[in-house]
Amino acid sequence: MATTRFRSPDADTDLLYKELAERDLQPLWELSGLLTAQPAARAVPYVWYARELRPLATRSGELIPVERGGDRRVLACANPGLGGAPYAVGTLWAAVQQLNAGEVAPAHRHTPAALRFVLEGTGVWTLVDGDPVPMAAGDLVLTPSWTFHEHHNSASQAMTWLDVLDLPVVAALDAVFYEDGPSDKASLAAPEASRSEQRFGGGPGLLPAADAGAATGRSPLLAYRWDNTDLALRGQLAAGAPIGHVRYSDPLTGRDVMPTMRCEMLRVPAGAVAGPARQTGGRIGCVLHGSGQARAGTETFALGPGDIIAVPSWHPLSLTAERDLDIFFTSDAPVLDALGLYRESDG
Amino acid sequence: MATTRFRSPDADTDLLYKELAERDLQPLWELSGLLTAQPAARAVPYVWYARELRPLATRSGELIPVERGGDRRVLACANPGLGGAPYAVGTLWAAVQQLNAGEVAPAHRHTPAALRFVLEGTGVWTLVDGDPVPMAAGDLVLTPSWTFHEHHNSASQAMTWLDVLDLPVVAALDAVFYEDGPSDKASLAAPEASRSEQRFGGGPGLLPAADAGAATGRSPLLAYRWDNTDLALRGQLAAGAPIGHVRYSDPLTGRDVMPTMRCEMLRVPAGAVAGPARQTGGRIGCVLHGSGQARAGTETFALGPGDIIAVPSWHPLSLTAERDLDIFFTSDAPVLDALGLYRESDG
Amino acid sequence: MATTRFRSPDADTDLLYKELAERDLQPLWELSGLLTAQPAARAVPYVWYARELRPLATRSGELIPVERGGDRRVLACANPGLGGAPYAVGTLWAAVQQLNAGEVAPAHRHTPAALRFVLEGTGVWTLVDGDPVPMAAGDLVLTPSWTFHEHHNSASQAMTWLDVLDLPVVAALDAVFYEDGPSDKASLAAPEASRSEQRFGGGPGLLPAADAGAATGRSPLLAYRWDNTDLALRGQLAAGAPIGHVRYSDPLTGRDVMPTMRCEMLRVPAGAVAGPARQTGGRIGCVLHGSGQARAGTETFALGPGDIIAVPSWHPLSLTAERDLDIFFTSDAPVLDALGLYRESDG
Amino acid sequence: MATTRFRSPDADTDLLYKELAERDLQPLWELSGLLTAQPAARAVPYVWYARELRPLATRSGELIPVERGGDRRVLACANPGLGGAPYAVGTLWAAVQQLNAGEVAPAHRHTPAALRFVLEGTGVWTLVDGDPVPMAAGDLVLTPSWTFHEHHNSASQAMTWLDVLDLPVVAALDAVFYEDGPSDKASLAAPEASRSEQRFGGGPGLLPAADAGAATGRSPLLAYRWDNTDLALRGQLAAGAPIGHVRYSDPLTGRDVMPTMRCEMLRVPAGAVAGPARQTGGRIGCVLHGSGQARAGTETFALGPGDIIAVPSWHPLSLTAERDLDIFFTSDAPVLDALGLYRESDG
Repeated sequence: MATTRFRSPDADTDLLYKELAERDLQPLWELSGLLTAQPAARAVPYVWYARELRPLATRSGELIPVERGGDRRVLACANPGLGGAPYAVGTLWAAVQQLNAGEVAPAHRHTPAALRFVLEGTGVWTLVDGDPVPMAAGDLVLTPSWTFHEHHNSASQAMTWLDVLDLPVVAALDAVFYEDGPSDKASLAAPEASRSEQRFGGGPGLLPAADAGAATGRSPLLAYRWDNTDLALRGQLAAGAPIGHVRYSDPLTGRDVMPTMRCEMLRVPAGAVAGPARQTGGRIGCVLHGSGQARAGTETFALGPGDIIAVPSWHPLSLTAERDLDIFFTSDAPVLDALGLYRESDG
Repeated sequence: MATTRFRSPDADTDLLYKELAERDLQPLWELSGLLTAQPAARAVPYVWYARELRPLATRSGELIPVERGGDRRVLACANPGLGGAPYAVGTLWAAVQQLNAGEVAPAHRHTPAALRFVLEGTGVWTLVDGDPVPMAAGDLVLTPSWTFHEHHNSASQAMTWLDVLDLPVVAALDAVFYEDGPSDKASLAAPEASRSEQRFGGGPGLLPAADAGAATGRSPLLAYRWDNTDLALRGQLAAGAPIGHVRYSDPLTGRDVMPTMRCEMLRVPAGAVAGPARQTGGRIGCVLHGSGQARAGTETFALGPGDIIAVPSWHPLSLTAERDLDIFFTSDAPVLDALGLYRESDG
Repeated sequence: MATTRFRSPDADTDLLYKELAERDLQPLWELSGLLTAQPAARAVPYVWYARELRPLATRSGELIPVERGGDRRVLACANPGLGGAPYAVGTLWAAVQQLNAGEVAPAHRHTPAALRFVLEGTGVWTLVDGDPVPMAAGDLVLTPSWTFHEHHNSASQAMTWLDVLDLPVVAALDAVFYEDGPSDKASLAAPEASRSEQRFGGGPGLLPAADAGAATGRSPLLAYRWDNTDLALRGQLAAGAPIGHVRYSDPLTGRDVMPTMRCEMLRVPAGAVAGPARQTGGRIGCVLHGSGQARAGTETFALGPGDIIAVPSWHPLSLTAERDLDIFFTSDAPVLDALGLYRESDG
Repeated sequence: MATTRFRSPDADTDLLYKELAERDLQPLWELSGLLTAQPAARAVPYVWYARELRPLATRSGELIPVERGGDRRVLACANPGLGGAPYAVGTLWAAVQQLNAGEVAPAHRHTPAALRFVLEGTGVWTLVDGDPVPMAAGDLVLTPSWTFHEHHNSASQAMTWLDVLDLPVVAALDAVFYEDGPSDKASLAAPEASRSEQRFGGGPGLLPAADAGAATGRSPLLAYRWDNTDLALRGQLAAGAPIGHVRYSDPLTGRDVMPTMRCEMLRVPAGAVAGPARQTGGRIGCVLHGSGQARAGTETFALGPGDIIAVPSWHPLSLTAERDLDIFFTSDAPVLDALGLYRESDG
């Protein structure tokens, strides 16, 4: 008998409950909390501060070697509402990854998709299915589902970046596959540009003729450079938008960069307020530049560069900038969109 | 401190672990089981047998009233691998619902989508957003996400049917909304046909001109009648297919009837074998006619009318028919498809 | 000098015009009529009456053999506005085809797509890429672009049907390809059902599982039977629609049956009026049952079974029924839709 | 009697033909040339040379005023095979437009879509539905279907550019609408950038969040700047492609910039050869930089900057570069694609 045995003061009903449990059945009318009026996320609004993350990442770098046994030197943000699960919100893994000068994090691939958002530094590159993608501050780098990836630090300093994965969703769907890969030992020199950028990075709307129309559901452009993102944000503000708000997209389709994660960059000018806005599904934010305050649900947090914020499903979020605030967000909005479950409001 | 506190024999590392826990961080290198080589579903292959389900449903009907407090008279299949959760596999709710003669299960709506597959009987109808949909043996009836629905039994006998919901997926995504609705007290007479069938049920490929192209992501046809399904299966066999295999689809798009559940009917002629086949995501089967054996993973089950089988993600399933076997299946294949996570093999 | 030589009273300008013509250039400012305020179709509203078509088709059947040299025994409707071109409107070929008892119209294929709408009779079948498709009164039969097709009359009587092709569009796009095919000599017995119907004809929304999602842009269902169309029309009227109006669609996508021709059936109950409505692109109508009047542009025509009406682009059409009027329509609406040029109004 | 009257030596047949003509019918078996084995385009391969176009455009500028009466100062390329029609190939209008210093070509809109490809100069801008779009050498500027557009030359020199329109296709479909518009008298100062570029021109894959997903079938980015196109071509060559080949796309969808015209830029390095390749539908090419030879069908043409080449449907084209050749192409490939009629081969 593996399932819950319910009890009733009525003897006949109690006997029924006993037999239901013996048959691995549960009486719906005794269950509660299955269908809530609104989403009842267990995760809570939360911030991991850069002033705490950085020294801990550095110490991890001193104490823990990067090697196959240790896989990746990663500190996972564990939302206090989730009872010890290593997830930043119920649907997203967020973490800081530390790679010391000269280190290589070896190759593997998995069905959970990952993105890297770089907060500072240069000289690190990620090899994605054989294409070397340089990483620098403000860049968004993708390692889509089931692509081999390994990280190389060919600089003289450590780099720390934000990792976000859709792991909780893929795990909930019982769809995790994993495989080690052959690592590239050839060179530690940082490449100038990835092939993906040579082919898809020329300008908005300019596609290689041979690939136009050959969409696969995930972006063939593996890096979105800060210079371009900054240009796009400045353009929007010049065109009169009160808040700059870019959505990173697959140039072959205009859709989200990966089927499970929406990526966005907000620029809130000093003194302006973005939101409040809420949406189904979780959100992870990470400040690139500037400072301000976030109000998430009923809590208020001060924010500065490198801080990571978790906003659970259906919690309103507003952002107030003290100094021009550039903040990266990722969410599982495309998942909810695809399933007809996406809702948003200015609540 | 809400997260796990890891330990290390090395004093410096142990101090690091202590501080990580204080900051709600977890060291990835101490975690295990996150990334498995293949899906590691906790659910196990399992069968709930009609010979046990029916008398328990009948006794529930005698002991438990249907009313707002009790909501629905439903016995949920609880997979023994899931530690007491009331789910048939990790991603699908499956249950038998019992509605006595003259009863009405009152109106509500929720973002989890539901389907009803009717095993026997007639005279029950479900009101879906105001459209009365008759239910009879072999019919598939849909109550898509956020549609008001209530069940009326205007016959002189109880009816039992299979309910399947995507509830575990919607809950994992923190996207459950629920609302009570105004129930229809007007009439207990069974309607002749739903308006959805009057408009979309004329024949394959025949759409109301005004609605062609107005797809919403879920089928506007709320009932798929057994006579048509049987005709489609016979046609396939007549055309030379060894196994009849119908996918229920949205007539406006040809896509799955709802964005979260694929619905299929298999006809395995006596002596034939379907499979083995496996796929990512869970499957629920329910026998309509005939008998045979299912081999799911490493277990074998005898199957007959009304039996419900749960097949967890990536478990191979093969079906052998003793007498021509008609078996309904539903799965979360469209979810995995939409997210780029669907895989299948004949493994 | 192959282009037009314009003249000007001004000597310098006239010299310019001379040199433009020598260089195969034309001065836009001397051209007129290129950009009209509204579509200026050359075709006119017109009706070809069954009482005239039938005896002429019969006499053609007596005088003209069907054989490779003669290809098809077809009388093409030539709109009087088109200056002798054999087209019913500027964008559609319409014709009556006559096939005598025992005759075979041999196999060929071409990029222009064709449809057959059967007005009366039975016993004829069309072999479409090897699939024998029976034809009977009220049926719509497709021979999509580049499918081999041949017609067999295994009945004891001649049959006459309506052919419509997108030939003028394909010709205007310089995309006509043609190829003779190997004809099937095997049998003159009428088949019971096409394989396309065995596989896709079971009921609305019921697809062969293996083919769901494998859309090609044209319907895999090659015949739409009158019984189903009639059922769909009766369902719409029962659901309260004042006019029955079915759009034939590809069951795999819900889109038009072929990328170049929309097919529809109207049922106007006696005394009711459909329209006026106008749309960009030409329309061809053909009465199956009943009688009434059509007002197309500024002209009024009496209509009865077998009559064929041509409605040029942007001409309002209204239909008044004396006896319940079933009228088939085809148009190039999908072409205009795909190119962003479709407009309609109740003008 | 408006249609062709066929003749037969057989008296009965001749009488039939007489009556067919009286009823506006034509006997298919007497028609020929309707269904050709391959496309039989009437247009011929042809080149209009810049050395001839420029002085004629200049003289037109001296002799012909731009004003409402004269509409646009445009010289239309008239393919010698088309019997005097002002079209460069059967499906595309191509022309050079001349706008003198200080002139304004007044506002209008039409359903035929237009593009402008700029060969040299600066200081001209086109107002597209209120958005001022600067034009400079190498830029592609769009005025999609039914957008108001007017051209302003605020420079001190005349500018000449290439216009291409889908007019022959829209006319063949009887879908031409035209409307004069209110011209902007406000300012002749050239704007710095269009709003469309401020919003969509930031970088590949970077969309305004509010507009992501709001595709309309035509690009919201109205200008594709040469600097970006050049960067994209250089990237492709750096990534190892023997020929640079960019397709201009709608950043919201990755599809062609307009539903009726594909736009591409080829860079053939000196000594390299592109093609031969043929495709259904017409192509217009225009050289931006470099020199070489084109072989179109069986003819060979020398090509240099500003030359315009017409390649009719299904004619093979190969390009040989003497000096690095940048050549812009537009075609009606999206029309043929949408209708299932696109074919290509390296024939």
